[in-house]
Order: sequence, then structure tokens, then C-alpha cells
Amino acid sequence: MINLLTNHRTVRQYSDKAIEPALLNRLLKAACRASNTGNMQTYSFIVTQDEAMKAALAPCHFNQKMVTQAPVVLTVCADFNRFNKWCEQRKAVPGYDNFLSFTSGMIDASLAAQNFCVAAESEGLGICYLGTTTYTADKIIDILKLPRFVVPVTTITAGYPAELPAVQEDRLPLSGIVHYETYHDYSIDDIDQIYAERENLESSKKYIAENNKETLAQIFTDIRYTKANNEHFSSVLIEVLKKQGFFETKN
Amino acid sequence: MINLLTNHRTVRQYSDKAIEPALLNRLLKAACRASNTGNMQTYSFIVTQDEAMKAALAPCHFNQKMVTQAPVVLTVCADFNRFNKWCEQRKAVPGYDNFLSFTSGMIDASLAAQNFCVAAESEGLGICYLGTTTYTADKIIDILKLPRFVVPVTTITAGYPAELPAVQEDRLPLSGIVHYETYHDYSIDDIDQIYAERENLESSKKYIAENNKETLAQIFTDIRYTKANNEHFSSVLIEVLKKQGFFETKN
Repeated sequence: MINLLTNHRTVRQYSDKAIEPALLNRLLKAACRASNTGNMQTYSFIVTQDEAMKAALAPCHFNQKMVTQAPVVLTVCADFNRFNKWCEQRKAVPGYDNFLSFTSGMIDASLAAQNFCVAAESEGLGICYLGTTTYTADKIIDILKLPRFVVPVTTITAGYPAELPAVQEDRLPLSGIVHYETYHDYSIDDIDQIYAERENLESSKKYIAENNKETLAQIFTDIRYTKANNEHFSSVLIEVLKKQGFFETKN
Repeated sequence: MINLLTNHRTVRQYSDKAIEPALLNRLLKAACRASNTGNMQTYSFIVTQDEAMKAALAPCHFNQKMVTQAPVVLTVCADFNRFNKWCEQRKAVPGYDNFLSFTSGMIDASLAAQNFCVAAESEGLGICYLGTTTYTADKIIDILKLPRFVVPVTTITAGYPAELPAVQEDRLPLSGIVHYETYHDYSIDDIDQIYAERENLESSKKYIAENNKETLAQIFTDIRYTKANNEHFSSVLIEVLKKQGFFETKN
């Protein structure tokens, strides 16, 4: 079982084989068994299988080919709409139009998403997370017709693997991630050691050379996750939270 | 494997048996294999095993007894401190002092947390998530000495179960959680049907009576997750994000 988790690799190429509805249901049920705040289940899954809908979503994920190629695209949302409606039908006044409620929905949606992925891999499927979901939440909301109090958190593409890539071994050493009792801040030497293996990979060196950069870190700051993009997408996401009702009260 | 996920139940009572360091390491390694944004691994785990530290953390979790009773308390944090330091040592200018970066750290921390829990349960351990983590993030930051760009997201207590509670069967029906192609907003009848089973549980009826409430929803809005508390904790959390550096730029 731990082997299943440690053998995880992102799968971006899927075969033509469909995911049977009964299997998809089992995976979604397993997702819903994840722990969640007060058993409120303040999340929803939007399943995209229609080709036209996949094509509509693709630009939201920067046209990464998994979106149109995967048999199932799953958009996982924080959702207080259902819970609010229930409260209102039951003489209860919901107080979830605030940032804390959004974060609890976001965490619970993430835990459910990960359960879905573990279940999927245990059944021989391959998955890929699309972090682009929060960047273009405004557009995804329009396409999937998400009402107020529903915000997309992450997206998973799933299907039978066309080819199984090698396990990425390049996680940071555990000692660089785990702290005992209190946080022990990193010295210059610590940072050098933690990132040494990753920096020494041939693939990293190639990546740096191809992009005319001096260091691997510059690939992240100058190309992949730039300050300008992060700030732009932060503004988009905060506007989304306001529009969807999670900043109604003065925070 | 899916059975392991669907058999999940929250365990709040632990035996005296310790978690061996080698096992804890295996679980943490499995946690780190979860998908994460750009393989940046912008999360950290703080392991609390010291009795005095558990006692210090307990009030942050409203003195729920799991915190002092569990052999391991794991605080899972969004962490850009390590990544920022690496960038700065590598002639790269990090641009992660914004809300988007925090949310990506929060999601990735949550996925890793869930992998930890699945791995733990597969080894016979029981776990409990503490949603109180975001409510009292300011205090947890002080106790665990978390530097800027580190924010606690969730906490897990883990240990061998003293007793195995029954699986909570009361998840909402899948049809109430899953939408195909677009979000289909809930009618009054839909809401009635989705919540019917839960409302009809003997335990729900008892809970309502004990608290002198009229409906199960009122238990949530008036007692467990009140508007006043949510608004208070929203303010705390937003101040934490500002203090920890995730609202440096105008969003």
C-alpha cells in the first residue's frame, strides 16, 4: 500500500480506453470518504467527459493536451452552495460567506481529490493534477456554470496510461522537509545540501542550458512561476473569492 | 486498496504504543510522493512528540484530548521559506509573497497530508485531522517557531487505535456531490433528498434534542460553526497571511 503511494508518477498520456461509470463511481465514493470538516462535505466534483466541454476547458489549463486527451477531467471545487441552501431550508442562518470557510472548503476538497487519485492509481489508472485551476478560476466558473459559493480548487485528468513514465525520484531529502518539535530554520549549508541532488541531475543541467539560465532556481523565478504571473493570478483569484461570496464580511 | 479508503474512520483514542521512527519516516516519505506544484514541495512537516510541546499546542486545538494523547502530532504547513532561501542563494529573485503562492502551498500541503493519512492507516495506525489549525494559526506559529512564509494548514494526530470506532456511514449520497458536464444547481427537493438520510439518523435526532434545536442545520450554524466564530477566525487567518508575507503585493 505504501508502495502504491511511493510509486506515484504523473501520467500525461492516456490510452483510448474509457473509465467505466461503475469504476468512476467507486473512485468518487472513495474520494468522499476522506476526512472533512464537521462532515459538512463542502466540496463538489464536476466530471467532464464531453469532447466539446473538454475543448472549452483546455485554454483554462493553458491547452495542456491532457485535458482533451484524458477520458475524464475532474474539477474539484470548494462548495458551500449546497450547504447554505440546506441551512436556509432548515430555519438556520448560514455564516459561511468568509475567508475561513473558503479555506476549510479548499482543504477538504484537496483531501478528497487526493483520495480520488490514490484510488484511481490502485485501479491501474494514471492521473495528473492541473495547478492552473486557481489561475483561471474565473473562466472555469463560467464554463462549468458554478454558482456563488462554489470555487474550483484543483483539476485532475484521469485515464488508463498510454505509457508509464519512470517514477520521478527527485523529491527533496526528507530531512529537508521535516522538523522535530520546532522549526529549525535553514542555514546556507542546509539549503546547499537539500537542493544538491536535484541540482546535479542531468535533466536539471539540460533544462538550465536550454533556457539560457545560470541556475535551476532561475527556471522557476524567471520562467515557470514568475512574480508577475503570480501577482496577476493572485488578483484574479481574490476577485473570484469576492464574486463567489467568500469575502462578504469585513475580514 | 479502495477498501482501505472506504474503511477510513477518525480515531481519537490511541494506545500507549509508540510509532517507530523508521515507520514514521516511511509515512512521511509517502506523504512527499504526493503530486505537488512544479515539484517545488512548498510544504513542511512539524513533528511533535515531546509532552511539553503537545501540552503547549493543546489549547490551539481547543484542548481536544487527542493532542496530548497521540504519540505523534503532525502540523502540516505551507512553506515558501525554504524555496525562497534557495532562490536567493542561486541568483534568483523569488516572487512568492502573494496569495496565489499561499493557496498553491496550501493545496500541496493538503495532498501530502492525505497521503500521510492513507499510508498511516495502511500500517494499522489511526488518524484524526484537526481543523482548528487555521483558526489558531497565529498561536501555532509562535509555539512551533514558524518563520515568515510558513503557515500551518492542518494538523494530524496519529497513533495505534485504542479502539476502532465504527465506520461513519453518513456521507451524503454521491449524486448530491457529483455534477456531470456543468453544475446543476439544487432544487428544494434535491436538498431534501440529499440530506434526508443524515437527518433521519437516530444520532442526529438525539443531537438536535440535546442541544434544544429544531433542525440539524442549526447545530452547525448556531453551535459548531457560527458566523461570529468564522468571521473572527477569518480575520485572524488573514492577519497571519499578511504577517507571514503572503500579502506583500497589492492583490
